Amino acid sequence: MHGAWIVSIGNELLIGRVINSNLAWLGKKLTYLGFNVRRGLIVKDDCEEVAWAFRLATSSGAKVVVSTGGLGPTFDDKTSECLSKAFGLRYMVNDEALHLVSKKYSSAGLEMNDYRIKMAMMPEGAKPLPNPVGTAPGIRLKVGETYIFALPGVPSEMKAIFEEHVEPFLKRMGPEIEFFEVEITSKGLPESSIAPVIDRVMMRHPRVYIKSHPSGKELEAPVQRIHIQLSSKSRKEAMKILEKVEEELATLLREKGAKVIRSSRSPIH
Amino acid sequence: MHGAWIVSIGNELLIGRVINSNLAWLGKKLTYLGFNVRRGLIVKDDCEEVAWAFRLATSSGAKVVVSTGGLGPTFDDKTSECLSKAFGLRYMVNDEALHLVSKKYSSAGLEMNDYRIKMAMMPEGAKPLPNPVGTAPGIRLKVGETYIFALPGVPSEMKAIFEEHVEPFLKRMGPEIEFFEVEITSKGLPESSIAPVIDRVMMRHPRVYIKSHPSGKELEAPVQRIHIQLSSKSRKEAMKILEKVEEELATLLREKGAKVIRSSRSPIH
Repeated sequence: MHGAWIVSIGNELLIGRVINSNLAWLGKKLTYLGFNVRRGLIVKDDCEEVAWAFRLATSSGAKVVVSTGGLGPTFDDKTSECLSKAFGLRYMVNDEALHLVSKKYSSAGLEMNDYRIKMAMMPEGAKPLPNPVGTAPGIRLKVGETYIFALPGVPSEMKAIFEEHVEPFLKRMGPEIEFFEVEITSKGLPESSIAPVIDRVMMRHPRVYIKSHPSGKELEAPVQRIHIQLSSKSRKEAMKILEKVEEELATLLREKGAKVIRSSRSPIH
Repeated sequence: MHGAWIVSIGNELLIGRVINSNLAWLGKKLTYLGFNVRRGLIVKDDCEEVAWAFRLATSSGAKVVVSTGGLGPTFDDKTSECLSKAFGLRYMVNDEALHLVSKKYSSAGLEMNDYRIKMAMMPEGAKPLPNPVGTAPGIRLKVGETYIFALPGVPSEMKAIFEEHVEPFLKRMGPEIEFFEVEITSKGLPESSIAPVIDRVMMRHPRVYIKSHPSGKELEAPVQRIHIQLSSKSRKEAMKILEKVEEELATLLREKGAKVIRSSRSPIH
């Protein structure tokens, strides 16, 4: 089974100023994508520490290493430079990244400066991953047989880059599994009432991923399209689990007063 | 500066079923107690992994290693056995632990069985740490110059054992610092309204620890005694920071409608 490690970079995690929700989110996603999440390393914003973490992870035979943190413009954001040092790669301005970052600042009417250029500096050979929500691009780097994905620490940015640029990549190069999805629609319950129900069901079914997409208005006429996703080698097994989870979720939502309709059922890739 | 590592043991952390709030809580506590929290390791309930984590931590020169998870009665709770294997120590029934565990079950009218006895099995030479909230005792073990504290994963149990048995121990053997405390009393705001204010102030001041103790009734006549704690080598510096934090906290609470009185100011040990 393909192995994955998660590296969380940031002093604030170790002094307890921030709870590491990113690791849990990534663990769930990587598990859903068919990876065996083997270890998590929490390190400071310090090159010796960051280099140690990446080198240990790549030498372990992991297929994928995902890091969060240290990609911003300030002096304590060192992940890109430390990643370069870790593998003896030239730390340089990546043209594609520079274009991405410059565009964001010029459309905000701002000039580039050293701090902003820093966000376009990457290990030689890296591929920048555009940031749909913020500014600092993520980094994809292949070291030996391992793919490293370095993402921002800000959860909304990390998740957006992961879903847009990492997840599709991992589906292509990852384990031979198919992705199955069932969609239900819930009417009458605000998304804030649905969220805890979804969390409960997801906790009971570790391999299932559930996302809700609101349409309608949160309080006046709330409607959510809820996608229940599962990865599996076996279509038969997947559909069995999905039906069970759909039933469970629909029952809980109806108990809370929602009207629940089944929308669609099909494998997605 | 004395170094500390945190080891979080549990598959559920890596598949993202549980967010690792324990690590953040311990990081904050250890920082407050004067330790430099150097690394966090997240590993599965697996002896190779657990042994790797403990051995790496002890060989790094860390003065303290705190682990959470894997101390319960079920088959996947392996921390105690893995800790023994990690250091070639005999894994055996600890008499003091057996007494602690038996007492809990007999006062509940239950017999001892293999699963329950398992919670009293520890590396030879370990000291059990009584669990005020649950059943499984924590474990204190000295390996070379490092003190290992293995605690349960259930947050309420972990915190209770830490505060009653680990914190006093660390104050005695830890860095040469004094502990300072200022107490204020808040009247009129329920604890649930105070908690986010306290979190905000704590986040702004990483070395300060703030605890509120409710008296009175949550909704009818809420009163909280709020302890603002800081560790420092310098009394002068400590009192300066504490006054600043006290002012900030009192202002925020008054803005929310509380009546705030200063209760006391003194070093505590």
